[in-house]
Amino acid sequence: MENFSFHNPTRLHFGRGQIAALDRELPADARVLLLAGGGSIKKNGVYEQVKKALGPRTVVEFFGVEANPDFDTLMQAVKLARQKNVTWVLPVGGGSVLDGAKLVAAAIKYAGDAWDIPAKRMSKLPHALPIGAVLTLPATGSESNGAAVISRRATKQKLAFISPDVFPRFSILDPETTFSLPERQVANGIGDAFAHVIEQYLTYPADAALQDRFAEGILRTLIETGPTTLANPTDYNARANLVWAATWALNGWIGVGVPQDWATHMIGHELTALHEIDHARTLAIVLPSLMHVQRQGKREKLLQYAARVWDLTAGSEDERIDAAIARTRDFYESLGIKTRLSDYHVPADTAAEVARRLKAHGMAKLGERGDITPEVVEKILRAAA
Amino acid sequence: MENFSFHNPTRLHFGRGQIAALDRELPADARVLLLAGGGSIKKNGVYEQVKKALGPRTVVEFFGVEANPDFDTLMQAVKLARQKNVTWVLPVGGGSVLDGAKLVAAAIKYAGDAWDIPAKRMSKLPHALPIGAVLTLPATGSESNGAAVISRRATKQKLAFISPDVFPRFSILDPETTFSLPERQVANGIGDAFAHVIEQYLTYPADAALQDRFAEGILRTLIETGPTTLANPTDYNARANLVWAATWALNGWIGVGVPQDWATHMIGHELTALHEIDHARTLAIVLPSLMHVQRQGKREKLLQYAARVWDLTAGSEDERIDAAIARTRDFYESLGIKTRLSDYHVPADTAAEVARRLKAHGMAKLGERGDITPEVVEKILRAAA
Repeated sequence: MENFSFHNPTRLHFGRGQIAALDRELPADARVLLLAGGGSIKKNGVYEQVKKALGPRTVVEFFGVEANPDFDTLMQAVKLARQKNVTWVLPVGGGSVLDGAKLVAAAIKYAGDAWDIPAKRMSKLPHALPIGAVLTLPATGSESNGAAVISRRATKQKLAFISPDVFPRFSILDPETTFSLPERQVANGIGDAFAHVIEQYLTYPADAALQDRFAEGILRTLIETGPTTLANPTDYNARANLVWAATWALNGWIGVGVPQDWATHMIGHELTALHEIDHARTLAIVLPSLMHVQRQGKREKLLQYAARVWDLTAGSEDERIDAAIARTRDFYESLGIKTRLSDYHVPADTAAEVARRLKAHGMAKLGERGDITPEVVEKILRAAA
Repeated sequence: MENFSFHNPTRLHFGRGQIAALDRELPADARVLLLAGGGSIKKNGVYEQVKKALGPRTVVEFFGVEANPDFDTLMQAVKLARQKNVTWVLPVGGGSVLDGAKLVAAAIKYAGDAWDIPAKRMSKLPHALPIGAVLTLPATGSESNGAAVISRRATKQKLAFISPDVFPRFSILDPETTFSLPERQVANGIGDAFAHVIEQYLTYPADAALQDRFAEGILRTLIETGPTTLANPTDYNARANLVWAATWALNGWIGVGVPQDWATHMIGHELTALHEIDHARTLAIVLPSLMHVQRQGKREKLLQYAARVWDLTAGSEDERIDAAIARTRDFYESLGIKTRLSDYHVPADTAAEVARRLKAHGMAKLGERGDITPEVVEKILRAAA
């Protein structure tokens, strides 16, 4: 096991009716920037619960944070927050709203160009306003980590930053608030969480027995809960298990002391930036293909994954690896998520452009061994055609 | 899954050489009460590493915190801390030193009789001094939770308290500091951690898929790592996996949203108070017997435990349960921990006295269903004769 230091300070309130906890968590004199997406929270009762819990506090509302939150949109929220002297940022939504809130919270008191924050991957953001979150879409883990991914459509960029200063102080996870989500978004959330675990698990052995067991436990839970919660969206326990698994997929704990990959995400970000494919769907395109191309470097963990996650223990090593990759692809397809570039009408030639852009963004050596060069990226995407 | 709120704010520094992190974690003007046990840290190099990291800070040393830390001993440390105006409490040791440090930190500025803290199970201790810990014995999870168990030999009492105000602000876990531990203490640590998981797992199903997977992952890691690290105490990775598993056994995460038992611990505390049997050894006496006596209420989880932890899937349900209980007993015996009262020369009649004392301590309804009455306690201990 590698050395590590770790801290996850987010207080979590999980379960039915927990939005009421907002009143305990926020100071009575808080001036709250309520950040939200397209307005679905006004249809499913979440907005009313939030407003009731906030009581007489001053609330400034900003709706319209889109999927893959856009820098220019977020800067409008920053402008509003500055005008109204807000003291807390309260995202109510899914990972995009939460990620956006992290940039907003960091930017409000930042004197320079806020695009610096993702562009320079700033990790020290001591001026960030405190964030409290109400999560309504299980997927990204943003409710309990310090990471955010910000898009800039004007320049077709999609960049991430990570800082301990933008961990939510608290997050509220009420599975019932997710019952009304479109099936497509729930499926995307399951697929996204699955890939988050794989990025931290499917590398090379590091003698980290517990991290492996936890990662495998999350994967099995997603495999078992995913189809159930898609088929029965109002089954509380199935949805609760999905919400909890998605948080755990990226709250940092399974990634301590082990190598991490993240090449699938970096390649996927470029596909979203270039072709506006849903984030989770880009992962579904890249992941099985990356497993196949990187099978030598990941050999031992692929065999462990085959045995412990998919119960595949018969056949030769290569047969088991092939079967595990096929199961992975089938899992995404079973969620209604297509796994080939051609399914999204994207020509295979995008491979060269993605490779070029990653190199331009300083990501010429991806993966846990740094051996996913632009040439390997191109190979992975051509194999995903 | 049941509703829950959870927060674990401890920052962890894990790995070789991490004691140096003390210098970053403690304010330059901290006046540090270094709390330790019998002096083994002066023999294994830990004391030198700690002193070096503390540098010019004022350090007040108190050695002599015993296993099952004694209230009267701890009050001497409190007296010293008050005289020297300490501002931080730094336990360097195992669970007993850490638990003792929590009482000391809470008592220094407490105006009343400090025995109130465990006796009244005080959970609000806002006057507690901050605690930073250097863990040298994997076992109790005290390095990353708000719980402490305090003994009072003068009255043969052993009581617990839990408060968010005594979570260590940070803890340092360097597996190498545990290499020189006596085999008996390592075995006790493994057995203690195993029981901690069982208390939070082996109850009744609560549709908490992930908590179950994590609990099973910790149990399997202890089963795999335990014998290896006992046989090869300086195998870094085996010891690192034990240290990490012991932390996870009681850092609170696997217990969120699920019923918990803890009867084994409550019964065990009385056995320690009455007969001075090592804490972990009392658990080894009680646990297999409690599983047997409570097999109806725990039936579904016993079958899950048999299948997922011990790979026992053949035979009738009762045969699988019997086999799982036998494996549990064998596991403790394989660590060199005896599992019968008679092994410790304790007569079966202690059963009645333990039952009486638990009732007197307000614990007449133990277990996840509150159905472990004094009569059931007596039955469990007589079955452990």
